[in-house]
Amino acid sequence: MQNDVLALAKALINRDSVTPDDAGCQPMMAEFLKPLGFNIETLPFEDTLNMWARKGHQGPVFCFAGHTDVVPPGPLEKWISPPFKATEKDGLLYGRGAADMKGSLAAMLVATHNFVQKHPDHKGSIAFLITSDEEGPFINGTTRVVDTLEARNEKMDWCLVGEPSSTDKLGDVVKNGRRGSLTGFLTVKGVQGHVAYPHLAENPVHTSAAALDELARTHWDEGNEFFPPTSFQISNINGGTGAGNVIPGELEVQFNFRFSTEVTAEQLKQRVMGILDTHQLNYDLDWLLNGQPFLTAEGELVSATRAAITETCGYDTELSTAGGTSDGRFIAPTGAQVVELGPVNASIHKINEHVRIEDLRLLAKAYESILEKLLT
Amino acid sequence: MQNDVLALAKALINRDSVTPDDAGCQPMMAEFLKPLGFNIETLPFEDTLNMWARKGHQGPVFCFAGHTDVVPPGPLEKWISPPFKATEKDGLLYGRGAADMKGSLAAMLVATHNFVQKHPDHKGSIAFLITSDEEGPFINGTTRVVDTLEARNEKMDWCLVGEPSSTDKLGDVVKNGRRGSLTGFLTVKGVQGHVAYPHLAENPVHTSAAALDELARTHWDEGNEFFPPTSFQISNINGGTGAGNVIPGELEVQFNFRFSTEVTAEQLKQRVMGILDTHQLNYDLDWLLNGQPFLTAEGELVSATRAAITETCGYDTELSTAGGTSDGRFIAPTGAQVVELGPVNASIHKINEHVRIEDLRLLAKAYESILEKLLT
Ligand SMILES: [Zn+2]
Ligand SMILES: [Zn+2]
Repeated sequence: MQNDVLALAKALINRDSVTPDDAGCQPMMAEFLKPLGFNIETLPFEDTLNMWARKGHQGPVFCFAGHTDVVPPGPLEKWISPPFKATEKDGLLYGRGAADMKGSLAAMLVATHNFVQKHPDHKGSIAFLITSDEEGPFINGTTRVVDTLEARNEKMDWCLVGEPSSTDKLGDVVKNGRRGSLTGFLTVKGVQGHVAYPHLAENPVHTSAAALDELARTHWDEGNEFFPPTSFQISNINGGTGAGNVIPGELEVQFNFRFSTEVTAEQLKQRVMGILDTHQLNYDLDWLLNGQPFLTAEGELVSATRAAITETCGYDTELSTAGGTSDGRFIAPTGAQVVELGPVNASIHKINEHVRIEDLRLLAKAYESILEKLLT
Repeated sequence: MQNDVLALAKALINRDSVTPDDAGCQPMMAEFLKPLGFNIETLPFEDTLNMWARKGHQGPVFCFAGHTDVVPPGPLEKWISPPFKATEKDGLLYGRGAADMKGSLAAMLVATHNFVQKHPDHKGSIAFLITSDEEGPFINGTTRVVDTLEARNEKMDWCLVGEPSSTDKLGDVVKNGRRGSLTGFLTVKGVQGHVAYPHLAENPVHTSAAALDELARTHWDEGNEFFPPTSFQISNINGGTGAGNVIPGELEVQFNFRFSTEVTAEQLKQRVMGILDTHQLNYDLDWLLNGQPFLTAEGELVSATRAAITETCGYDTELSTAGGTSDGRFIAPTGAQVVELGPVNASIHKINEHVRIEDLRLLAKAYESILEKLLT
């Protein structure tokens, strides 16, 4: 298979792998890696295809992590070219997944190829942890591969996730952690009734307004050097039968915390319940912990990544923990150092997703440089 | 046609007149009234049938007002007898409309028959204002008949509405007015965004919580001798896309005032907008004035009604302005005195609606007594 980042990115984009369909991407990557000395393990769980590929039997283990699945393309007629036919235009490569994250996968393959050619006797091991379920419910993907590895005590030391971390130019931002995400499903209970007889009813919209105001105004923490302050947002609120003369019997509120390492999920739960109790509400509250916060503050991986970007791009990078969740949250708890480095994310999940072709070449070089710093 | 309140009530209940269908009720009433000397005027508007029947050409004009339409029966299998087949059981008469308000219509007919028999040369006029659109959108019913009468300068002096005013026993409560009803449709505007990037969004649920709390806590007035304090209730609140990671761009709130004669609709609007402005909200607000408050504090009609109840039932009645709206709100503005007297309302709009058969007989006597006090 051709050792060219553009050709590889195109070949991946041309596979219609809407989550959780791998559409042949992982087998293609496996065919590329086998001749380089990788042992390929296919780990399908339910509707999801996962691959664990490893070259070498010694530690330390450096792992590239990523996903072959993409979000749906949206209305096809709005695309300037078919989303599953990679198209070059004015130095950009268009297609669904170009930036998130088939371009990164291609760069990982090329970096690995070039590194192994130059350093056939490198130290440690190189691995790939690839899933087709990052854009979906992330139940049968990375988390289950990690469970499998943990069960047999197979460890990663350094993990580089290919998520599009860059903001304005390649490598300007590296994610060295992510905030935690905690969702609450609140039902405030009242007594349904007729608006003409309010003394026979209890309006849960009225009784909870002050509590919601307090939740919205609360400063949960100040954040820290690595994390912005914890934020609280109500994403959905619904009460009422639709009729204009009925006092609702219940109010449903869904809210989400993105939280720093200054608080724990348990502390947030206790503080929310404290506020609801202060306002004497009668409620049910269910929680979903979408992800714990994680942080790779310092260490070999962060140092190598910083240096590789300065070397390859000619400018320094910025560490950030902002933005949404990523599969890094499943890997970091194993004790691995985790960073995310990938293309500019401005067009991801949008119509006409694209990546600069030159950025793919730079990214492959940066990845190769990281391998050199850690494994030679 | 038989001059028997039970037979007449049954004949009306057996007609399946779900709003706005009259299902032959008004023609039946007309056939009863014609031999008594009534001139019948049929006033259909759109899908609604209305009747204006009058006996006599002189003032003062006493009018019975009511409706032949009923609310839908709901699940038939929950009824102990078919809702449109009037059924006697243990002294009660079951059927949709038994209490609201076909029993009252039957009592009005019998009272009129007996009164006219005894007092063929009574003074003034007796009228019936009957619609098939009281339970519906009340656009083509009483309000349009009143417009028609006003246009030709035909006045009512006293109007007795047959709505089920009684609480525990027949005549224990007479409605001598109703609160006004004002509905607001509020849209609070924010900026939609992703929960991971709250600084790029503005959450309208957060910005409006304090304002909604203030609206819910505000004392709008103290009411007065005849009206309870004005009440405010949020009936519907909706915000959010359903997704857990999206900050909503708008919040929709529907609320309703039931207001006394101590405030005007215009004052309420200004005060609501004042509160929203104090909280610096960006909003759209539409209003629907469902009805102005009205009151018949004193006068011949209230006195005659009180005396008739004491005479017929053996106990005193209580004046009240509580409860939902009624078509009285369309009649009172013409200057007519308006009271509402009808059966116990505990079962109205419910499964197994019913009325005490003895109450129908008492109601016919009370109505007849009122006619005697006012027109002899
Ligand atoms: Zn991604
Ligand atoms: Zn009614």
